[in-house]
Amino acid sequence: MEISAALVIVQKYGGTSVGTVDRIRNVARRVLATQRKGHDVVVVVSAMSGETNRLLGLAQQISPIPDERELDVVASTGEQVTVGLMALAIHAEGGKATSLLGHQVRILTDSAFARARIQDIDVQAIRKAFAAQKIAVIAGFQGVDKDGNITTLGRGGSDTSAVAVAAALKADSCEIYTDVDGVYTADPNVVRNARKIDRISYEEMLELASLGAKVLQIRSVEFGMKYQVPIHVRSSFNDHEGTWVVPEEKAMEAVLVAGVTATRDEAKITLSGVPDRPGVQAEVLRPLAEAGIVVDVIVQAHIQNGRTNLTFTLPSADLARAKDILLKQCAGICPPEQLKSEENLSKVSVVGVGMRSHAGVALKMFEILAKENIHVHLISTSEIKISCVIEGKYAELAVRALHDGFGLAAGA
Amino acid sequence: MEISAALVIVQKYGGTSVGTVDRIRNVARRVLATQRKGHDVVVVVSAMSGETNRLLGLAQQISPIPDERELDVVASTGEQVTVGLMALAIHAEGGKATSLLGHQVRILTDSAFARARIQDIDVQAIRKAFAAQKIAVIAGFQGVDKDGNITTLGRGGSDTSAVAVAAALKADSCEIYTDVDGVYTADPNVVRNARKIDRISYEEMLELASLGAKVLQIRSVEFGMKYQVPIHVRSSFNDHEGTWVVPEEKAMEAVLVAGVTATRDEAKITLSGVPDRPGVQAEVLRPLAEAGIVVDVIVQAHIQNGRTNLTFTLPSADLARAKDILLKQCAGICPPEQLKSEENLSKVSVVGVGMRSHAGVALKMFEILAKENIHVHLISTSEIKISCVIEGKYAELAVRALHDGFGLAAGA
Repeated sequence: MEISAALVIVQKYGGTSVGTVDRIRNVARRVLATQRKGHDVVVVVSAMSGETNRLLGLAQQISPIPDERELDVVASTGEQVTVGLMALAIHAEGGKATSLLGHQVRILTDSAFARARIQDIDVQAIRKAFAAQKIAVIAGFQGVDKDGNITTLGRGGSDTSAVAVAAALKADSCEIYTDVDGVYTADPNVVRNARKIDRISYEEMLELASLGAKVLQIRSVEFGMKYQVPIHVRSSFNDHEGTWVVPEEKAMEAVLVAGVTATRDEAKITLSGVPDRPGVQAEVLRPLAEAGIVVDVIVQAHIQNGRTNLTFTLPSADLARAKDILLKQCAGICPPEQLKSEENLSKVSVVGVGMRSHAGVALKMFEILAKENIHVHLISTSEIKISCVIEGKYAELAVRALHDGFGLAAGA
Repeated sequence: MEISAALVIVQKYGGTSVGTVDRIRNVARRVLATQRKGHDVVVVVSAMSGETNRLLGLAQQISPIPDERELDVVASTGEQVTVGLMALAIHAEGGKATSLLGHQVRILTDSAFARARIQDIDVQAIRKAFAAQKIAVIAGFQGVDKDGNITTLGRGGSDTSAVAVAAALKADSCEIYTDVDGVYTADPNVVRNARKIDRISYEEMLELASLGAKVLQIRSVEFGMKYQVPIHVRSSFNDHEGTWVVPEEKAMEAVLVAGVTATRDEAKITLSGVPDRPGVQAEVLRPLAEAGIVVDVIVQAHIQNGRTNLTFTLPSADLARAKDILLKQCAGICPPEQLKSEENLSKVSVVGVGMRSHAGVALKMFEILAKENIHVHLISTSEIKISCVIEGKYAELAVRALHDGFGLAAGA
């Protein structure tokens, strides 16, 4: 996308990009360079790296289960410090800027402290800054509820702040600065010839984000999709074009698979001989949900005599607790000898909007894995994604084989 | 003052009292103990000790002369962290509390960033906390202007926050917790038998505060005087009664001198042979004021031939700069050979409302100093105070001699 006329541009810089006084100065220069091209610029910043953990650590020392309203009061100071320093840095570089906190912009959220959702953003203060040729420096991660309480949006919430502000301003783009060059067809640490994706649809990015590509917070992509905000994921260390996350385009369908991704440290629990009656799945999963354990892939297969096998995956870290809960609370459904578990699993997935109109992607995936002698434990599919749960030690091999097999390699 | 019925009590804790997680816990217990006596309690807290300097240091690294609006955004986070942690600590001790920031209480100030003055305080949020049996934990030092900008009140501003909140609530008392037992007749580090003062008038406290007794910020005393708030200065390490700062009482007049105090590191400049014409003083002092140099005692003596000598004191740290300014900007009034200066001076003062109705206090002061062979350079008097500028090396001797001579010693 060529930038020519005056645009409204939102730029978001994470904790690493503002982690030191020198880095804050660098960001100030970048932001000013954008403004000097004639654009109206908003900068959304996170807390300096390490700061949020320091603050939460203090709270934790006082109370192991701290009140979330007060936790948000403490945690939100990290971003407040950064916006003040960033505005000072822009002044020091000869520019004009004004810092705006969640309650000053008025980023209105619900009252779910520590995981609040944005309901509305007032753009008046931002427009006023633009009118005065000022850069609006907005604190990410924070908002305010209707009673004036300070709220925070959850880890990584600054991405969501940035995209939401861009949506409210009808900005021309929302640039998310990070320490990588964009979104890749696979993790470049695993697949050496992984290719940077130039354009990807919101739907694909959502699947990749939730499947382990850590570039963007999921909710920020949902926001972008809902309000059609073009999101540009790019590096804060150079001026290269990154990856544009945009509405689905015709050209994207020609590509069968956009990316390959893998999650690690998955575990699997199988309950065999579960009575096959309505509601039995809920009886098993409710106590786990109440304990905050997130179950991922769920597969059920019929067997004979009115009994069935129920299998699901969960994070390895939760396995011991989950087994304990099931043995105590579901003993009637499943006696101990019928509960089996497995650890060190991985879920590899291929994602692409092209799958909608192409048959045979699943078949090709199984063939590729079979050729490497990788056993598939579980399968889960959506309209634009196929996931296979495999033994963890084969994860890298599987990702490389799928990446090659689907022709994603650079220059391929 | 015995506490019996339900009262409204404001307690203020400084940076040292909340300097660690353990100390925050201790304060939480103290505050809860007060509430459990049946009182409505407000706690006003400062930033954890060292935190404000850390924050200002970050800003200083970015810009040597930082924009004061942004500086206040950064600096005010110190108190924000403390109120959140304090509320968490009160919860952890089994109590109920809610933190309130300057903009949440609505501590309305003017827009003089870094030295804002409180204009109005809305007590609605505090009363709401009381109604819910909650302790209101208010961030000291900070306010908000009519446009929603964050402001700070200047160093030591939390004292002023506390007294102003107490005034707005018509509180029964405002307790200022510190690391000493109260206000003393002289600095206990200098005068071993200095006595804790039980009751002192606002006027006397104002003179003592501005003369070097660092217990209370001057503006907090002015606020207390204006709104007749009883201020109780006491230790956060024990339950002893401290010093009550209250409206003047009949009994106070019986005491000639309430306290003796000394400032250090004063310098003196004498301009001799200045033309004795109207406005000449202003011509000399204006350039100094414009450079932010605070001139204290000013004395002028007539000499012959229409020329006069002008002498004034100022902080030693400003002496070189002041001389430079005078030689450059007032060369016409006073050629270099007629400017003389002296350093290492001290101003010792005796303060007491009793002076108003007693003659001879000045005489007695000079006699006491003369007996110790201490030369008096300059004299300055007010209705309830006499100050003498002397050589700095005699400051402790002078304070001790005056403390004894006016019968202030414990048991005297």
